[in-house]
Amino acid sequence: MSSSDLLVSLNQKALNLLEEDAYKIEKLIEIQMENLTTRQCPLYEEVLDTQMYGYSREIDFAIRAGLIPANVGKELLNKLERNLAKLYEALNKK
Amino acid sequence: MSSSDLLVSLNQKALNLLEEDAYKIEKLIEIQMENLTTRQCPLYEEVLDTQMYGYSREIDFAIRAGLIPANVGKELLNKLERNLAKLYEALNKK
Repeated sequence: MSSSDLLVSLNQKALNLLEEDAYKIEKLIEIQMENLTTRQCPLYEEVLDTQMYGYSREIDFAIRAGLIPANVGKELLNKLERNLAKLYEALNKK
Repeated sequence: MSSSDLLVSLNQKALNLLEEDAYKIEKLIEIQMENLTTRQCPLYEEVLDTQMYGYSREIDFAIRAGLIPANVGKELLNKLERNLAKLYEALNKK
């Protein structure tokens, strides 16, 4: 494998991992949201904050390690935040 | 640069970043510990837990992205935990 192929492969792997992690967080939060009794609970807020923090640390590391460009990392984080906001809105309309 | 040189360089960069991050967490916790009034405070515990969680997410990502071997990641996390425990002991003896 050439060094440019290797870099593309590592970058793609990093991106896939980050997208998978965002999806896992969405699913986790969705399950928590569906349990309406806990949605107003401080524990729920804490889970959300902790997950977002952990994800932002992963993304920051991937950027610094040269695996993804900074703008892609920012977009991944924004996308997760938008998706979580949509989930929250959808549930409030029920 | 050959692909093996590139991989060594990316791996070394990832390791350096993780070591720097552990050092920053140690310094942050040390400063917090020196402020004795806050050491028993839940907020302090929360800062420690959050930092350790964020660091474990970074390490987990680095392992999955193929940048460091799993045993190296585990050792980095153990080392940080040991160093924080030492700081805590040293301060309690004062």
